[in-house]
Amino acid sequence: MPDATPSGIITLLTDFGTRDPFAGVMKGVIWARFSDARIVDLTHEVPPQDIAFGAFWLERSLHWFPPGTVHVAVVDPGVGSDRRALAARAGDQYLLGPDNGVLAAALERARDVEVRALDLVQLELVTHGRTFHGRDVFAPIAAELAARRWSLGDLGPSVADFCASPLPQPRVVVGAVEGEVVAVDRFGNLMTNIEADLVSRVVNPRIQIGDEVLGLVGTYADIRPGEVAGLIDSFDVLEIAERDGSAARRLGAHSGARVRVLSS
Amino acid sequence: MPDATPSGIITLLTDFGTRDPFAGVMKGVIWARFSDARIVDLTHEVPPQDIAFGAFWLERSLHWFPPGTVHVAVVDPGVGSDRRALAARAGDQYLLGPDNGVLAAALERARDVEVRALDLVQLELVTHGRTFHGRDVFAPIAAELAARRWSLGDLGPSVADFCASPLPQPRVVVGAVEGEVVAVDRFGNLMTNIEADLVSRVVNPRIQIGDEVLGLVGTYADIRPGEVAGLIDSFDVLEIAERDGSAARRLGAHSGARVRVLSS
Amino acid sequence: MPDATPSGIITLLTDFGTRDPFAGVMKGVIWARFSDARIVDLTHEVPPQDIAFGAFWLERSLHWFPPGTVHVAVVDPGVGSDRRALAARAGDQYLLGPDNGVLAAALERARDVEVRALDLVQLELVTHGRTFHGRDVFAPIAAELAARRWSLGDLGPSVADFCASPLPQPRVVVGAVEGEVVAVDRFGNLMTNIEADLVSRVVNPRIQIGDEVLGLVGTYADIRPGEVAGLIDSFDVLEIAERDGSAARRLGAHSGARVRVLSS
Repeated sequence: MPDATPSGIITLLTDFGTRDPFAGVMKGVIWARFSDARIVDLTHEVPPQDIAFGAFWLERSLHWFPPGTVHVAVVDPGVGSDRRALAARAGDQYLLGPDNGVLAAALERARDVEVRALDLVQLELVTHGRTFHGRDVFAPIAAELAARRWSLGDLGPSVADFCASPLPQPRVVVGAVEGEVVAVDRFGNLMTNIEADLVSRVVNPRIQIGDEVLGLVGTYADIRPGEVAGLIDSFDVLEIAERDGSAARRLGAHSGARVRVLSS
Repeated sequence: MPDATPSGIITLLTDFGTRDPFAGVMKGVIWARFSDARIVDLTHEVPPQDIAFGAFWLERSLHWFPPGTVHVAVVDPGVGSDRRALAARAGDQYLLGPDNGVLAAALERARDVEVRALDLVQLELVTHGRTFHGRDVFAPIAAELAARRWSLGDLGPSVADFCASPLPQPRVVVGAVEGEVVAVDRFGNLMTNIEADLVSRVVNPRIQIGDEVLGLVGTYADIRPGEVAGLIDSFDVLEIAERDGSAARRLGAHSGARVRVLSS
Repeated sequence: MPDATPSGIITLLTDFGTRDPFAGVMKGVIWARFSDARIVDLTHEVPPQDIAFGAFWLERSLHWFPPGTVHVAVVDPGVGSDRRALAARAGDQYLLGPDNGVLAAALERARDVEVRALDLVQLELVTHGRTFHGRDVFAPIAAELAARRWSLGDLGPSVADFCASPLPQPRVVVGAVEGEVVAVDRFGNLMTNIEADLVSRVVNPRIQIGDEVLGLVGTYADIRPGEVAGLIDSFDVLEIAERDGSAARRLGAHSGARVRVLSS
């Protein structure tokens, strides 16, 4: 088991937006329990209830944090229902969130995983229907984990049957890899579910999206002005980008668009 | 008097937006005076100069912070005029902001209140017309309060005639409560000025908005797919929500829309 | 040389937006190297690749931070090319960013400047084409500078030929000053490149923009309802503002619009 001694860092990933003070109030609750917490916003602009977007970015982001960081992910269309809530360790990182798949991409990728279903009665965090779980369940538990007062084993029973990741899996077929766009970044770059190691299995790879067949380059600066190309991006996935422009707009593509890596 | 020993936490609620570095610069000024301050953004996306929106969320949010937190609210269409600036204690929380009503909902709700008009000459924070009060007045005072170097009594004379809250008061009439929508959250839920205890006074309550009469449910998950209903939300007010959708869009409603709780 | 002992504060100014977790991941990397860093977002909403907007606000903002603050500016259309990266000291503030002009307004204004070109090989931060420099180069260096483990002299050779500021220079002509709008703030106020001391050289100044000739007032509150006027704003530049409205919308003006200060 990796050393996952809590670092005191808590990240927040939600679909709360930043206009209403929902995230701010979560931070008040965290600091009320653990005044030394360092809290960082991964994003609060997950598109409302877009579990796949949250799952993608949580999995890609957590490697960049110190061991023992607690990541809270609240994209939760089922809040108030009887869906379970989870606390987990994925390698040396902790995860908290509803059992609806938002944690699953990170859990499925990690080598060494421990998953607990929160026992809210035992934790004296019994929730009423109208509870704001980010504030009333996940923030207190994140604070107690980060403060090293509670450990995973205190939070509830082990579970193995958590919800699967909403992210589609790429498929390796004869001479090609088939995947899709899973996130469009701020610059209009199309990020796919095809990781670098899958691309490397294809000889002389070219990238097909819609009717376009694109070359694969090393970096943004290798794309000629006015052109679109594929590249392995800094989060280690195949990305389709336009030089000084938006590939999403140029190609009319968005999440779900099919992408193939072909041998040319 | 409650224990209001400063916690070292400062919250910011403004209409500055997040594109310009106004809020960032306030944090620089705070840390220049008090390097241990923990600073949290409640929101910087109060609609420009919408004092009621700011007053509503400040009052609903402050209970979630540790005692002795300093809340700075800068929604200030009159900056540069001779409107007064206030520092206050509402229960165990501190408030700073212009005397234009943005603090008033919080002050009116608190049991134990102390309000001071800032004496900027005595504090050596004399302002010129072009002063940015968030940075040049409220940030320094927040830092000094949080650092326990200044106390409320140092800041200026007591006042009792501060501006009233811009939030409309709900009215209790025979067999009904009349209020209105005061904020629309990110998900399109309609938050009203009718608190839970007023709803509980109505027997078999139903909720009227426009031509619609809605049921009252316990939680979001109790709303049937495609339906709209009322519920008491996690900030303890009557809210009108659509399951997996935007009640605001569905009903064409926004702040100011009349809402009645009727006995069915 | 001013005392520039690192304060432990790091500011971030980028065009990454806040929907993708790019800025959050930078903070993880900073805290992994320097757990006591205090990190503040100046803005992540620089319009994509708008170096001039970033340069303007970086220069106007840094004076408000304690000595020894490290400012990271990542607006970087050339990432992945062989453009240089810089570390600098401008007076008592540190700057990190690409050598494309985003740091230059701050460097040109400072009295006492030291500029280094980052030697990424020596720093063992060798970059591949697909590197995310904000995360993989500037965040680690910011952390090490703020932690006082590395100093400017460790980072690479001195350079004097850094890229010039993209901000246009105002021109002083007979009886007038000519400049332009360089940023439009959240409220629609038009901020210009004409600083207060240039305005003060004009006798009985009036402000011309497009076909309009406006008066110069002391503060927002001096503008009559429904009117537009010039004023020296809290960042010490000539600004054109509408009382309770948007001068940008009213005048149909944006960045690049010509502004003249005339003697009336």
